[in-house]
Amino acid sequence: MDFFFHPSGVAVIGASDNQAKGGFHLFRNTIQSYQGPVYPVNPRLPSILDRPCYPDVSSIPDDFDLAIFFVPAPALPDTIRACARKGVKGIIIESAGFAEAGESGRFLQEECVSLARDHGIRLWGPNCMGLLDAHRRHVFSFMYTDAWKTLLKPGDVSMCVQSGMLSAGFLMMILERGGLGISKMCSIGNKCDVQETELLDYFIQDPATQVIGLYAESIADPRGFLDLASSTHKPIVVLKGGRSPGGAKAAMSHTASMASDHAIMRSAFRQAGIIEVTDVNELMDVLRGFSKTPTCRVRENTGTAVITFSGGGGIVTSDLLHEAGLGLAELGKETLKALKTVYPPWMDPANPADIWPAIEYSGIRKVYETASESVMRDPAVDSVIVHIFTNMVESSMFANLARLRDELGKPVVAWLAGMGDALKAFRNGLEEVGIPTFDEMGRCVSVLAAILRHHRGRGSVR
Amino acid sequence: MDFFFHPSGVAVIGASDNQAKGGFHLFRNTIQSYQGPVYPVNPRLPSILDRPCYPDVSSIPDDFDLAIFFVPAPALPDTIRACARKGVKGIIIESAGFAEAGESGRFLQEECVSLARDHGIRLWGPNCMGLLDAHRRHVFSFMYTDAWKTLLKPGDVSMCVQSGMLSAGFLMMILERGGLGISKMCSIGNKCDVQETELLDYFIQDPATQVIGLYAESIADPRGFLDLASSTHKPIVVLKGGRSPGGAKAAMSHTASMASDHAIMRSAFRQAGIIEVTDVNELMDVLRGFSKTPTCRVRENTGTAVITFSGGGGIVTSDLLHEAGLGLAELGKETLKALKTVYPPWMDPANPADIWPAIEYSGIRKVYETASESVMRDPAVDSVIVHIFTNMVESSMFANLARLRDELGKPVVAWLAGMGDALKAFRNGLEEVGIPTFDEMGRCVSVLAAILRHHRGRGSVR
Repeated sequence: MDFFFHPSGVAVIGASDNQAKGGFHLFRNTIQSYQGPVYPVNPRLPSILDRPCYPDVSSIPDDFDLAIFFVPAPALPDTIRACARKGVKGIIIESAGFAEAGESGRFLQEECVSLARDHGIRLWGPNCMGLLDAHRRHVFSFMYTDAWKTLLKPGDVSMCVQSGMLSAGFLMMILERGGLGISKMCSIGNKCDVQETELLDYFIQDPATQVIGLYAESIADPRGFLDLASSTHKPIVVLKGGRSPGGAKAAMSHTASMASDHAIMRSAFRQAGIIEVTDVNELMDVLRGFSKTPTCRVRENTGTAVITFSGGGGIVTSDLLHEAGLGLAELGKETLKALKTVYPPWMDPANPADIWPAIEYSGIRKVYETASESVMRDPAVDSVIVHIFTNMVESSMFANLARLRDELGKPVVAWLAGMGDALKAFRNGLEEVGIPTFDEMGRCVSVLAAILRHHRGRGSVR
Repeated sequence: MDFFFHPSGVAVIGASDNQAKGGFHLFRNTIQSYQGPVYPVNPRLPSILDRPCYPDVSSIPDDFDLAIFFVPAPALPDTIRACARKGVKGIIIESAGFAEAGESGRFLQEECVSLARDHGIRLWGPNCMGLLDAHRRHVFSFMYTDAWKTLLKPGDVSMCVQSGMLSAGFLMMILERGGLGISKMCSIGNKCDVQETELLDYFIQDPATQVIGLYAESIADPRGFLDLASSTHKPIVVLKGGRSPGGAKAAMSHTASMASDHAIMRSAFRQAGIIEVTDVNELMDVLRGFSKTPTCRVRENTGTAVITFSGGGGIVTSDLLHEAGLGLAELGKETLKALKTVYPPWMDPANPADIWPAIEYSGIRKVYETASESVMRDPAVDSVIVHIFTNMVESSMFANLARLRDELGKPVVAWLAGMGDALKAFRNGLEEVGIPTFDEMGRCVSVLAAILRHHRGRGSVR
């Protein structure tokens, strides 16, 4: 599979000089990201973006590893044959018009799989948006934006998705919000050959991947997939499309995926330690939560501590924790004593720690730092949720909280409220310090629950 | 109750010239919002912000309706007596230190309630942040920001909350996102006298209120509350704090609220047609969804149509609809024919309508407009979810969708993906056109489900 991610050379079949066409963006993204030789193929153009253009694959003077196919589907069989003569190891087929388009498309797709197999060529797609490798900075996708140049940051999250949106526009939106570092993003469309189980195996072996996400409309090899999932400590977060009759029908025309009975799948996922989510933002939030929580040494759930500037917020979070099967920690005497040193005399500390009166009484930095330190070191506390009103603080006040998180192996998540640029700057700062932030209290709780459940279920990780 | 919202004059007891104190912000917010006479009371200052200051209530030369109390709790009984001599009708007590602070505070609070009753004075609070009336532009709150000057827009949503945050900092954050118009925001803290049931009655009678929201840690008069809820067509959305043992305990020290068994409450809420939510953003999202859906003539759920630029997004939404008890509409022949005119020849229209290929084939404006018109007019469609990638569109493309929504009485909600300022501008534009937008597909579905369930349950509204 390595040749898909770092090939020795890339041909872009269907490169275009017309900015309104995907073939332009595919070529531009490839040459602006990949440092090796790139061969644009288009019989109607002598050159594209100052690079000499080849009329067909056979005219390319060198051998190369990877072809990206972005011309109408019927040209694929001949392309496979021509590629075979150039030593090509893999073809990423980004064009549509295969199995998802009906009977003749399905026939064509099957013919191509068989032909490629005969020539020892692996097929990726079709009907997909290729891949991004953030560490190597390879972007083999026709996405119409080059926002990846500023937004794509290397990280440890790898994904395999059957959705162009999730690997392109939506991904850019999520990256713009900050805090998510990517390793490999793989859009596999109809997955006629390379599929999620093989990529899962690849991600599990890959040292640059520590957290794995999937959007799948079907699982090609469920037994293999579940066995792999059971075998790894790396968290695997799955959004399964087509759980409902209407969704399953739509999956058939989207990626020709035959969705299975989801009740069975759900329980198999759970047994294999897979974390299941139901929405696209939730998928990204849970992945970011895991990625920002590199250590977790929680063996037994003793309870979460909530540090909040809002009494109501603490109560809402307590209720949500309870409903997610997590409890509030019973704070120890030492912790209560430490909190008491910053609380006003009339107020007794408790969990949730409603620190607003203490902030007015002792100053905000002192209170957040005292609360973080004492609560994190409390043996009865296995995790912390912190609520922060961003317009009153600096992210440096929470650096110690992140250090304690790493030292003690107790997960920490933050809910932020605030306005304007201050909110944005603080969020970026806190994510950089290493604490994952969320917009909704409920998402804080569900991400934390996923992290605790994962690590409790399978011992220490990483 | 009217005198709380538009009093003949207001005394601010505990006005301060120190910007680090709530008493400064309370006074500043009051004089900058309220056009009638305002009397600052503080024995240590001759004037505040160029207004003459009174040493005590008795020194105020005029009679007046409303006092706002923001000095230490023990001064309240004497203040009530002095206010009685000035013809005061109501006192908003924003100070803490009453029942939430323990036994002696509870005793003091009870004494004050009894004293006020003897004098015919109504008490609001204590331990609260007062009220905002966006139509009259009255801000009787000590919130430390004057962001309300630009952010507070009159609308038809009224709320009663037992949380300062929800009526101040968090509210401002939500208002900054745009789309939510407020009628009255009431923070009632310990609610020693004025409580949620009386405010519910007031909101139900109030022509400026069409949608009602509550954050309550207890319901003082559950029978009265449920009877009122059953009697109105106005949607009532409730976030109940203290559903769990830990949350209930925290509610006791937050607002001295004794939470009841929530299983019983939940089923009573449902029977009374109350919409229950569990998170603070969700509360605001559902309120905005109702507020933006002024007409709904759905009698029977026939199914939702999904218009999406992402095949995967359509499938995820289909699954979420199913899990929320809503179905996909079976599109009629006319609708399919109309969609076919903009779809590429190789693709058959269906629901979800995955319009990306059509956008590439026929242009984005034509496709969104054709899809909106045909799908909205389909008798099998009772509601529409539209997914929009904001960086490719203008909000004017959706004006017709909003018009059709009003004409046909079918709710429409939008999920937006996009980046940077384009996303922000488009969101504002679409909210102005009248279509509520949400960040998560799941929230689109849950808001839509709440709207359909509410209107189906009780016939047409408004």
